[in-house]
Amino acid sequence: MAGNTFGTIYRLTSFGESHGPAMGGIIDGMPAGIGINLDEVQRMVDRRRPGLTRGSSTRQEKDRVEVLSGIFEGKTLGTPIGFVVRNEDCRSEDYDHLRDVYRPSHADYTWQMKYGIRDHRGGGRASARETLSRVVAGAFAMQALRLLGINIIATARQADDELEHAREQGDTLGGAISCTITGVPAGLGEPVFGKLSSALAAAMMSIPAAKSFDMGAGRALTTMRGSESLDTMRMVDGKVHFDHNYSGGVQGGISNGNDIYFEVGFKPIATLMRDIPAMDSQGRAVTIHPRGRHDVSAVPRAVPVVQAMAAHVILDHYLLNKTTHL
Amino acid sequence: MAGNTFGTIYRLTSFGESHGPAMGGIIDGMPAGIGINLDEVQRMVDRRRPGLTRGSSTRQEKDRVEVLSGIFEGKTLGTPIGFVVRNEDCRSEDYDHLRDVYRPSHADYTWQMKYGIRDHRGGGRASARETLSRVVAGAFAMQALRLLGINIIATARQADDELEHAREQGDTLGGAISCTITGVPAGLGEPVFGKLSSALAAAMMSIPAAKSFDMGAGRALTTMRGSESLDTMRMVDGKVHFDHNYSGGVQGGISNGNDIYFEVGFKPIATLMRDIPAMDSQGRAVTIHPRGRHDVSAVPRAVPVVQAMAAHVILDHYLLNKTTHL
Amino acid sequence: MAGNTFGTIYRLTSFGESHGPAMGGIIDGMPAGIGINLDEVQRMVDRRRPGLTRGSSTRQEKDRVEVLSGIFEGKTLGTPIGFVVRNEDCRSEDYDHLRDVYRPSHADYTWQMKYGIRDHRGGGRASARETLSRVVAGAFAMQALRLLGINIIATARQADDELEHAREQGDTLGGAISCTITGVPAGLGEPVFGKLSSALAAAMMSIPAAKSFDMGAGRALTTMRGSESLDTMRMVDGKVHFDHNYSGGVQGGISNGNDIYFEVGFKPIATLMRDIPAMDSQGRAVTIHPRGRHDVSAVPRAVPVVQAMAAHVILDHYLLNKTTHL
Amino acid sequence: MAGNTFGTIYRLTSFGESHGPAMGGIIDGMPAGIGINLDEVQRMVDRRRPGLTRGSSTRQEKDRVEVLSGIFEGKTLGTPIGFVVRNEDCRSEDYDHLRDVYRPSHADYTWQMKYGIRDHRGGGRASARETLSRVVAGAFAMQALRLLGINIIATARQADDELEHAREQGDTLGGAISCTITGVPAGLGEPVFGKLSSALAAAMMSIPAAKSFDMGAGRALTTMRGSESLDTMRMVDGKVHFDHNYSGGVQGGISNGNDIYFEVGFKPIATLMRDIPAMDSQGRAVTIHPRGRHDVSAVPRAVPVVQAMAAHVILDHYLLNKTTHL
Repeated sequence: MAGNTFGTIYRLTSFGESHGPAMGGIIDGMPAGIGINLDEVQRMVDRRRPGLTRGSSTRQEKDRVEVLSGIFEGKTLGTPIGFVVRNEDCRSEDYDHLRDVYRPSHADYTWQMKYGIRDHRGGGRASARETLSRVVAGAFAMQALRLLGINIIATARQADDELEHAREQGDTLGGAISCTITGVPAGLGEPVFGKLSSALAAAMMSIPAAKSFDMGAGRALTTMRGSESLDTMRMVDGKVHFDHNYSGGVQGGISNGNDIYFEVGFKPIATLMRDIPAMDSQGRAVTIHPRGRHDVSAVPRAVPVVQAMAAHVILDHYLLNKTTHL
Repeated sequence: MAGNTFGTIYRLTSFGESHGPAMGGIIDGMPAGIGINLDEVQRMVDRRRPGLTRGSSTRQEKDRVEVLSGIFEGKTLGTPIGFVVRNEDCRSEDYDHLRDVYRPSHADYTWQMKYGIRDHRGGGRASARETLSRVVAGAFAMQALRLLGINIIATARQADDELEHAREQGDTLGGAISCTITGVPAGLGEPVFGKLSSALAAAMMSIPAAKSFDMGAGRALTTMRGSESLDTMRMVDGKVHFDHNYSGGVQGGISNGNDIYFEVGFKPIATLMRDIPAMDSQGRAVTIHPRGRHDVSAVPRAVPVVQAMAAHVILDHYLLNKTTHL
Repeated sequence: MAGNTFGTIYRLTSFGESHGPAMGGIIDGMPAGIGINLDEVQRMVDRRRPGLTRGSSTRQEKDRVEVLSGIFEGKTLGTPIGFVVRNEDCRSEDYDHLRDVYRPSHADYTWQMKYGIRDHRGGGRASARETLSRVVAGAFAMQALRLLGINIIATARQADDELEHAREQGDTLGGAISCTITGVPAGLGEPVFGKLSSALAAAMMSIPAAKSFDMGAGRALTTMRGSESLDTMRMVDGKVHFDHNYSGGVQGGISNGNDIYFEVGFKPIATLMRDIPAMDSQGRAVTIHPRGRHDVSAVPRAVPVVQAMAAHVILDHYLLNKTTHL
Repeated sequence: MAGNTFGTIYRLTSFGESHGPAMGGIIDGMPAGIGINLDEVQRMVDRRRPGLTRGSSTRQEKDRVEVLSGIFEGKTLGTPIGFVVRNEDCRSEDYDHLRDVYRPSHADYTWQMKYGIRDHRGGGRASARETLSRVVAGAFAMQALRLLGINIIATARQADDELEHAREQGDTLGGAISCTITGVPAGLGEPVFGKLSSALAAAMMSIPAAKSFDMGAGRALTTMRGSESLDTMRMVDGKVHFDHNYSGGVQGGISNGNDIYFEVGFKPIATLMRDIPAMDSQGRAVTIHPRGRHDVSAVPRAVPVVQAMAAHVILDHYLLNKTTHL
C-alpha cells in the first residue's frame, strides 16, 4: 500500500535509496518452468545505465544484477526472484550542501512534508535510479512474453543535437517516448477499472518525470469526429483485419488483437547545471549550483524503462486473463 | 482482480449491465461519523443523467440512488455503503439487431473475445452507464473532502454549437475535461508506483472513451527547457509560495500543497446516427443503423465522472497517508 | 482494506446492517459462461435462515435473493454479480433498550471504541446475518466447483437434545463443524503466506463466533510423534494413494489430491434468554434481559456458512493456480 | 498473489530457497521516523537459528541480516526496507539422493504437482528457513509496537526431556506455542472478513507445520455454555475491567483492550532420522534415510516466528485502524 509494489499477478516490489548500500527488488508471480537468459536481463539493465547514452550523467556504475532466488538450473521455479544491484560509485559528499535545501520541481520538499525525514543524497528513494529494478522485472517479463509471440518496441522522440545544445547551456530538455506492442491476443484487460489502457497509463505515469500519456491516437482524438475515427473491421483471409487503429489496440479497455501503441511525455529534468533559486528548510532563499552528475534529458535512459513497464503490464494482464474461464 | 474495484482504502466495487435489473455498488472504507447529505449525492448523480445536458441521449431514467446500508441517523457508520439504481427505461428490443454484430470502435468484439459471452443490450457492462456508480462514490468522497477544505472543479472544453452541428449530421465529437483540486495538503501520494499522478491517470483513463491524460502542464512540458519550467518556491507571509505550477501540484508523485490540475481527453463516441459499417460474428460485413438513444459527445456527462474519480483518488490517498506515521 | 472483501480472484464484497434496508454483496471474478441454477442458490440460503433449524431464532425472514447483474440467459457473463436480500421482519424496537448498552462478549463495546458510532439494532453490521452474503457467494462457487468434480460436505457436531435442554434454561451452547472437500486436484495453494491451510483458517475464523481451527488431524498432531503421523504415499493402479491423511490433504500449504478436511470450533452465543450483567456507555452496571429472537447455538445455521466459505477458498485458489504457468 | 507477501499496510514480501544464494525480503509500509536498533533485530533472528535451541538442527549459519535500504542515520525513512541473509553453510550434496523423491508429509510432491519444477535441495522454498524473513519483519514491527506500549510474549509447550528422548530414537515431536499480546488498545481489527482473530489465524497457519489455532479459550469454548463463558465487564477505578477473558481479547473481530492470547499447534517434523518409506517421481517405492541436519521439533525455533507474525499483524491493524476516521 506504501506504493512500492506494482502489478496484480506478476508483481515487482522494489527497494533502494540512490546512495544507500543497494537497489533491488522481488519479482513475485513469474510463471514456473521458463528458461531465463540472465545475460539478456543484464543487457537491458545496461541500456539504462548512466554514461551509456548521449545526454546522460557520467556516473559510472557497473550495475551488476545479482539474482538471489527463483531460478534453478536455468529455469524459473515459480518462486519469488530476489535481486540486488549494489550502489558502488556514490559521491555522497556532492550532496552535503543539499541536506537542508528544497530544490524547485524536485521531490525534496514534498518528501519532507510527507515523511518528516529523507535521505537527501542523490535524491534518495526519489531518484530515478529506482527504475533499475523496474528494468530487471521488465526484462524477465519480456522473456516470458517472447514465448507468446509478444514484442515491445520503444523509441525516443528527441534529437541528439538538441541534447548537446542544451548541455552546453547547462540546461535540460523534456521529450517523449513512443511504444508499440505487437502480438498481443484479443481479450487482455479487465473492465471496469482494470482497463488495459488504465493499467498502461498508471504504469507510465509512475515513471519519474512522466507528465502525459496518450493511448493510441490519444489527444488527437479530442478534436476529431466519430465519422473520421472509427476502427472499422473486416475479415481478410480468415483473419480479423482493422482498417485503422486510432484506439491503439484497446477497445472498452480490452485488447483487440491489433498493435497496442501509446506515447509518454516527460518534463525536462529539474536539475540544471547552472545557478538554481531554491529554498532551505528554514524558508530562506538560497542559490544552489549542482555538483552531482545529471542527465540533460530523462528520455534516452527512460526508453528501456517504458519498455519494461509495458512488458510488466502485458504479462500481468495475460496471466490475469487466464482466470476469466474455469 | 477482475477489475470492478477501485481504490485502496476508500474503495468502490461496482456492478451492473446497462439493460439488466440495476446498477449499483459498495463503498468500503468510508470513515465513520461523517454527516451525509443524500440529496446532494442524488444531485451529483443527476448531473450525469441522460437528457439533462445538451448533446446527450434522450433516455429517460430517474436514476434514483437507493442507499441500503452504512448510514445511521444521518451519519456514516464506517461500514460498507451499499447502493442500487434501478434500470427503468430499457428499450432492450432496440438492440436485438446487434446481438451478433461487432460495432467498430466498440467493446463488442473485445468483450466477446475475452468472455465468449456478452450482454449485447445497450453495451451491457461496457456501457458508460457504469459511471453512475462512480459518481455515487465520488459524491460521498466529496462530502468528506469538504470537511478537510478540499474542493474539486471540472470543466468541459467543448462548444455547444459544435455539438448541435455534429448532432444534425448524425456525427459525434471528442473533447476534453480540465479538473482542478484545491486545498490538498502537501504529502499525499505514495512513491514509487503509487504516485498521485499515476493514481489520477489510472482513474481517469478508466473512464469510458478517455484517451489522453496530462498532469499539470502535461504534454507542453515535453518541448520546454528545464530553465523555463521550474516551479520555484519561496516563503510569502510565512507560507510556502510557488511562483509557477507547471507540475500540477505534484512533485515526485507527492502533492506539494499547490492546486492539483490535469486534463483528460476523450475520443468521439463510436455510435453515429448514420449507417455504420460493422462485422457480424460470422465475419460477414453488415451495415447497422443505431436506433438506441446516444450522446453526441461523452464530454458533458463525463464532467461529474471526472470530478467523482478525482475525489475518490484524493480521499483514498488522504486516508493512506495517515499510515505514514505511527 | 476495511475488511468487507474476501478472496483474491474470486471475491465477495458484502454490505448490510441487520436492521437496515437490506443485506447484499457483489461477487467479482466469477468465470464466464457457467450455467447457474438460481433456485439452488436460494435453497442454500434457506438452509441458514432463522426458524428452519432446531435451536435457531424464530425471526421470520423470507430472505429472497435478488440477483441484479452478471447473469445473462442463464449463464455467467464474467461480470460482477450484484445481489440484495431485503430485511423484512425487523422488530427494531426490541433493541431500543440496548442503544447505550455494551452486552458482554458482544461486539457492542469494541465497535463503539473503533468507530465512535454504531447501529445498535440487532447487532448492526456485527450481526451474524452478514453471513447470508457469504452463503450466496459460496452457492455460486459450489456450482462452478461441481463442474470440476469438487464437492464440499459440512456436518455439525452437536446433539439436538442438548440444544433443547439449553433452550429451556435460557442458556446457549458452543459446538463444532467438520468439513470435507473431495475432488480437489493436487497443486492448489500458494506458498509462503498464501497456503491453502492459511486461507481456510482465515476464512473460517472470520465467521462470527468461530474460535478454533484444526487442519486435518489438527491439535491431535501436537502430541503425536513423527513416526506415527506420516502420510506415506504409493502408487495403486497407476494413481497416487496416501495410506493416511493426518495432514488433511494439504502439505507445505498445497493440496496433495487427497480429501481436504478441517474442523471449526464455535463459542456459545453470547445472548442468553435470562438476566445478563452488562455495562452502559457511562460505565454503569445494568442488567439486560434480551427480547429479540436468538439462536441457542450458532452451529446449526453456520453449517452452510462453513461450506460456502470453503467453496469460496477452493474456487479462488483454483483460479489463482491457473497463473502458475504461462 | 503468488503468496509471498503478507500484510495490508505493513507488508513483508520475502524470497529465497534454502540452498540458493540468499534469503531476504522487503518490508514496505514501515512508518517514518522510528529509531531502529539493528542489533536487536539480529538478536531476534539469532533466536531462530539452528543449533541454538535444544532439539534443533546442527546446521551452522551465521545468519547475518544485512539491511540495504530504508534506514537513514538510525531512523526509518518510510521507504521500503530491503534485507538479505546469505545462505552460507549449504551442504547441498546431502540432498542429491532426494532429487527425484517425494518424502511423505513433505512439500516435495505437492510442489512438483503445482510447478512442474522444484529446487529439491534442503526443501528449497518450502524449507522453514523462509521464516527467517518473517522474524526480521517482526523484529522491526516489535520496535514500533514498543513505542505504543504493546508487547508480545510467546512460550513453547514442550518438555526438554521429551525432545531428547525422541532425538535418541531418531523420531520427532509435535507441540504448541502460546502467545500473549499486552497493551493493544480497543478498536483494532476490521469486520467482516478482516477480523483480528482471522488475521492472526491466517498468520499463524502460514507458519510451516502449523496445524491448529485457538483464539482465547478456543476449542474449550465448544463444550461450554454461554452462561459460563461471558466476558462480563465493569468500570474499576475509571477503567474498563473484564472479569474474564474467554474470548482472548477480541470480540466481533475487534480488540477490546484486554490481553490478546491464542495458541498454535504444530505437527511433528516429517523428517525422521531413520528409514522412511517414500515414492520416487516414477511412482516406485523407495526407502530414504535423511542425511541432512534436522530439528526434532519445530516448536522451539518457531517461538520467535510466532512472536514475529503476531507483531506483524498487530502493527498492520494498528496502522489500518488509523483510516477509520477522517
